[in-house]
Amino acid sequence: MAHTKLPYNLLIFLLVLLVGCKDVPKEDIEQETTTISKDFTQFVNPFIGTSNFGTTNPGPIAVRGMANVSPFNVAGPKNLPLEKDSRWLSTPYIHENTFLTGFSHVNLSGVGCPDLGVILAMPTTGDVETNHLNYGSTYTKESATVGYYTNTLDKYNIKVEATATTRVGVSKYHFPEGKANILLNLGLGLTNEEGAMVNVVSPNEIEGMRSVGSFCYYKPEEAYPVYFVARFSRPADTFGVWKTPRTYDGVEGKWMGYNGKYRIKENYTKEVVGDSIGAYMRYDFKTPTVVEMKIGVSYVSIENARENLEKETSNKTFNDILVDTKADWNQHLSRIEVEGGTEDDKTIFYTALYHTLIHPNTLNDSNGEYPKMKTRETLKTDGTRYTTFSFWDTYRNLHQLMSLVYPEQQSNMVKSMLQIYDESGWLPKWELNATETTTMVGDPAGIIIADTYLKGIRDFDVEKAYEAMKKSATQIENNPLRPGLKDYIEKGYLTTSTVHSGSVSTTQEYNISDFAIAQLAKALGKQEDYELFSKRAISYRNLYSDEFKLLRPKNEDGSWLTPYNPEYGANFVENVGFIEGNAWQYTFMVSHDTEGLIELMGGDDTFTNQLENVFKKNQFDMANEPDIGYPFLFKYIKGKEHKTDALVQQLLNTYFKNTPDGLPGNDDTGTMSAWAVFSMMGIYPISPAEPSYAIFPSKFDKVTIHLNNIYYKNNRLILSKESTSEGKKIKVNKEIYKNHFITHHAITSSK
Amino acid sequence: MAHTKLPYNLLIFLLVLLVGCKDVPKEDIEQETTTISKDFTQFVNPFIGTSNFGTTNPGPIAVRGMANVSPFNVAGPKNLPLEKDSRWLSTPYIHENTFLTGFSHVNLSGVGCPDLGVILAMPTTGDVETNHLNYGSTYTKESATVGYYTNTLDKYNIKVEATATTRVGVSKYHFPEGKANILLNLGLGLTNEEGAMVNVVSPNEIEGMRSVGSFCYYKPEEAYPVYFVARFSRPADTFGVWKTPRTYDGVEGKWMGYNGKYRIKENYTKEVVGDSIGAYMRYDFKTPTVVEMKIGVSYVSIENARENLEKETSNKTFNDILVDTKADWNQHLSRIEVEGGTEDDKTIFYTALYHTLIHPNTLNDSNGEYPKMKTRETLKTDGTRYTTFSFWDTYRNLHQLMSLVYPEQQSNMVKSMLQIYDESGWLPKWELNATETTTMVGDPAGIIIADTYLKGIRDFDVEKAYEAMKKSATQIENNPLRPGLKDYIEKGYLTTSTVHSGSVSTTQEYNISDFAIAQLAKALGKQEDYELFSKRAISYRNLYSDEFKLLRPKNEDGSWLTPYNPEYGANFVENVGFIEGNAWQYTFMVSHDTEGLIELMGGDDTFTNQLENVFKKNQFDMANEPDIGYPFLFKYIKGKEHKTDALVQQLLNTYFKNTPDGLPGNDDTGTMSAWAVFSMMGIYPISPAEPSYAIFPSKFDKVTIHLNNIYYKNNRLILSKESTSEGKKIKVNKEIYKNHFITHHAITSSK
Repeated sequence: MAHTKLPYNLLIFLLVLLVGCKDVPKEDIEQETTTISKDFTQFVNPFIGTSNFGTTNPGPIAVRGMANVSPFNVAGPKNLPLEKDSRWLSTPYIHENTFLTGFSHVNLSGVGCPDLGVILAMPTTGDVETNHLNYGSTYTKESATVGYYTNTLDKYNIKVEATATTRVGVSKYHFPEGKANILLNLGLGLTNEEGAMVNVVSPNEIEGMRSVGSFCYYKPEEAYPVYFVARFSRPADTFGVWKTPRTYDGVEGKWMGYNGKYRIKENYTKEVVGDSIGAYMRYDFKTPTVVEMKIGVSYVSIENARENLEKETSNKTFNDILVDTKADWNQHLSRIEVEGGTEDDKTIFYTALYHTLIHPNTLNDSNGEYPKMKTRETLKTDGTRYTTFSFWDTYRNLHQLMSLVYPEQQSNMVKSMLQIYDESGWLPKWELNATETTTMVGDPAGIIIADTYLKGIRDFDVEKAYEAMKKSATQIENNPLRPGLKDYIEKGYLTTSTVHSGSVSTTQEYNISDFAIAQLAKALGKQEDYELFSKRAISYRNLYSDEFKLLRPKNEDGSWLTPYNPEYGANFVENVGFIEGNAWQYTFMVSHDTEGLIELMGGDDTFTNQLENVFKKNQFDMANEPDIGYPFLFKYIKGKEHKTDALVQQLLNTYFKNTPDGLPGNDDTGTMSAWAVFSMMGIYPISPAEPSYAIFPSKFDKVTIHLNNIYYKNNRLILSKESTSEGKKIKVNKEIYKNHFITHHAITSSK
Repeated sequence: MAHTKLPYNLLIFLLVLLVGCKDVPKEDIEQETTTISKDFTQFVNPFIGTSNFGTTNPGPIAVRGMANVSPFNVAGPKNLPLEKDSRWLSTPYIHENTFLTGFSHVNLSGVGCPDLGVILAMPTTGDVETNHLNYGSTYTKESATVGYYTNTLDKYNIKVEATATTRVGVSKYHFPEGKANILLNLGLGLTNEEGAMVNVVSPNEIEGMRSVGSFCYYKPEEAYPVYFVARFSRPADTFGVWKTPRTYDGVEGKWMGYNGKYRIKENYTKEVVGDSIGAYMRYDFKTPTVVEMKIGVSYVSIENARENLEKETSNKTFNDILVDTKADWNQHLSRIEVEGGTEDDKTIFYTALYHTLIHPNTLNDSNGEYPKMKTRETLKTDGTRYTTFSFWDTYRNLHQLMSLVYPEQQSNMVKSMLQIYDESGWLPKWELNATETTTMVGDPAGIIIADTYLKGIRDFDVEKAYEAMKKSATQIENNPLRPGLKDYIEKGYLTTSTVHSGSVSTTQEYNISDFAIAQLAKALGKQEDYELFSKRAISYRNLYSDEFKLLRPKNEDGSWLTPYNPEYGANFVENVGFIEGNAWQYTFMVSHDTEGLIELMGGDDTFTNQLENVFKKNQFDMANEPDIGYPFLFKYIKGKEHKTDALVQQLLNTYFKNTPDGLPGNDDTGTMSAWAVFSMMGIYPISPAEPSYAIFPSKFDKVTIHLNNIYYKNNRLILSKESTSEGKKIKVNKEIYKNHFITHHAITSSK
């Protein structure tokens, strides 16, 4: 989003006017910031996370952008072993790969399943070649900064530059003299879906659509279109469309001299559809020539893709766009200022913050239209309809970061969740572009809603939200969010017969959701519900095995699962009790009831011992979510609080680096990055739906968070260190802070 | 086309006004006719030609309609051996097949290559089943009349009725009570092309497109879309779209539980694209219920398909439409009245006439828009843009029939040919839906143009036409119409090295075209061209072999092709000298120079002997065009003229019957039917581009052709028989006619 640069006084005046105004889209209101003149984007390294399965990509993207121009280097045997069809690969770009077959224009960042990675553009020279295995190229002179990526294609000596607005990918191709081509390949893609339509509208414009979907191989029947319009700064000398049909094996195949071969439709101006199609623009340059290409995208229609393109980029050059996009990023990054630390520390920090501002991303078009859940009718929003809600990941820390630093965004995310509820009858779990992928387990949306509300962000229909939360917690039949709810309610837990796998971890997830409902019920004065759900929220205790001092699955008859090896299930091995983990990685994931768990275990010592065992036995998994809150649990044990401080620094040093493999694994739509941002600042939201943080020494000398005055009374939160005679002490704003937890109210003074 | 029924006097007044007016679309002007109260449609049996590879279909179609609702019974092993994927099959319906899998809405009639046969609708009951092998059904109670078809689907007890307007197929499904479905299958089709798009717009409407093309396996790169909008008289209770993707064989295939399986997208409202897709409407009827479905088609756009549907059928019921379509057919059929003959004779005659009024068919939408050749940009016409120009077939007799009986249509056909020349730079050869398929050989368009002009139909740009004709006759490089032109001009013939096959027959075709150019040049006062092309027109004489008394291929060095078996090449065996035939079937195909051939052969006796040998040696092929003029050549031999009379009756009796196998083979877009119409009337256009006919006894006692007074002075032509003391004599109008040829002027008195 391009923010209007208003004079500061006028801005404050407007803010004052708007504070009491309910219907204003608050997201577009700029907060008080005095730091905008600094360039924080210099500390973003878009290559972090592009190796070691971080699954980020270095391509330009606007803040929460729908479009993203990613180099695509995961196709073709030259990229083995990291080739998209040779294994489960979920990113269009991998740093160690070398063979580039285009630039994809809609992509997911930091996810664990392949989807999107389509609308591939590729500049080439010479004759038109439509097979990516033949036209692909190695590349050199690769670099990337916020909103900008460049490389040079060795095979063609073409320098490529790319930038983006929210809904438009913008590329600049520096062609040598001679024949030049821009290919739009709509067959190749990261997604497992197929099917596209393309239509060359004029020598300056191509429009079309590509089917995507089936995230994590779920719900192929809900595959859906992404539309695009591509505009070129120079009209093509000639253009065309290609189609590579399937090889026909009927008797008639022998009559078809063209059987299975690709076909070129030169200067053709009607739609072409098929599984493997594309379009091209051709030039013949007398001198080296630059062509700029803008690709607007939309999940609603071609018309909207065109409108997005025009509204966001008309009359703007590549450089204009780059400057605007970078400025918007800088405004967002500037909400947190860090001082001290190394250059690498700052780069790790701001890149992590950058990664938390990619997903959830914008789904609606510039005119407010977006597709309704499942049926994809067109609806309209006044604010921003966000998408890519990977809630099993992000309920743990990313939304807490948004609530603190970008509350206007978090408010719109909650509103988007309620739109989804209105449209589908259920809150989202893993929503992607108006489809509920049903990936992972649990019922995390309500946790986020409660957490948001309890932090003072309340400009949404909380009664509707509460109704939606309670529905998934109580409706036993046809409940897509809480399978096994009957057993959960009746027995207090899921049994090894209730679900295929993850009976314990799913029980824990439901507990946390019920805790969130209880907290919100309390805030809304629903005492009865508060009591009911508070009780339900600790039912995991039924699964505590005194023998192992860990959680353990129970069978349908109430007996323990036997034999039982609590270490089984590490490294994502499927197991009956836990999803993507084992008993060590899950037992402590009851942060809403840590004191209860301590009591269950027989006191601080056993608890501390077991928690330490997780790390000693090498059971801690920094790359997956269930145990990422563990390091902060030492704060609950008197005398052991400092263990958190050291452990966090050690984990940061081990797993977060200013290198392509500088994320522990999948970024999980920013969850790992949010962990780094909080951990480096020195606070961490220890228990979702509880408005408080663990507090510990920051990586930096001073961290200043500029708070949004629409939501928070304080202008800023400063976390710093003060050297005292007793060593370094943490300062919150101007005062030395001695506790190990701090409330959200204390650091924002709420409103 | 729905003609306005004007009072007769007003009509004449208007006609007088319009005669001198150049720009008026004359096709919409009704001719004088006094016979409209008779029902000629009763003599049409739409099942004639639906067996024995006639490749007509019994489905309803309007006069020269774009849409046609054909029962589709050529898919699935239950239809073996006549199953579309098991052999070269070029029709959606075959009478002896039994397993019906839908009704296709755009179809070709009487062609020899598979194309179109798409947009298949099928009513079913029970649950939705999308595989045609499972949902297909046998049928009973099948019958068809002009503009109407009905059957009852055994599996579902659904009675189906169908009718059509020019651009809309209209169906009426009588569902029993219970669950009912209407499937629109966009995967299955007769064409070898694949790829479609579908979008359920509302519970009453589905829109989409289907790729078609590659007629005769030529030019797959010019495959093109046909668009449609389907409207339903009752809103569906639920609807959906299905997609059957290809089976994925990558490593990831194992993750895809749905690999290769069909997917249903229930109540989905966005476009779906793919090679095997469809949409359905679902109902649950408390009582037996009728649903009417209208499918408008267009080769320009979905919007035009919708406009076609609305303009032609809005506020009209199935029965209204049927009445109008039938009335228009009757108006057209009534232009020729026959008296005498058996019911079968009349049925054979009017069905043949009906078949000549199907192709060429309408390409433009109701708003005049049609796709430009190849690029498919949208253009607009004031008149009718005709398509399906199978000129290698139709130049021999069909256009001559049109010029005589429907000159206003023939005029528009010539104008369409000139539009194609404007758009593509070349006259058409085998044009289909704005693609030049390049099927067959020769350069026949100019023959038709000259023939039309010389018959007094001159309301087209004849200078442009002449320019176009001369271009293909003289441009040696990059000439798509006349490959081998250099040898033809330099040597007078194509050699066995010039082309892959058909060196002799192609030389003959070029000769006939050159003859036509010469005739037109003469009429236009271009004396020099007349002489040049007259000379070129008889160059086939170089290929006359005195040894065989037949034509014979020559090699590049001028030597005869040796060894040489003139019978080789019958039954469509590929051979070096002749296309789809042999020396016997081609030698006499120089009707513009029959006298020259007689001389070459050494006189009447040898000529007669050789011509008789064609029949004696069983070399005559009634099912293919090169020799279909042979029976009339006896008229050139004094004393042998009666041989024509007997032979024609014998051929009519043998090959043309009131049964599904009542055509000798492919109808060739009406060419075989035109042969029957002329032969049964008692005249035959013996030499294309010569305005004269052989005349012989009619099958009927009296034939009255109502002539179009805009083009012809006479109101009618009456051919009848008069019993005299010397036996039956032919009467033309009121006079006994004694010659064996009669000029076009004599029977129309031209204008």
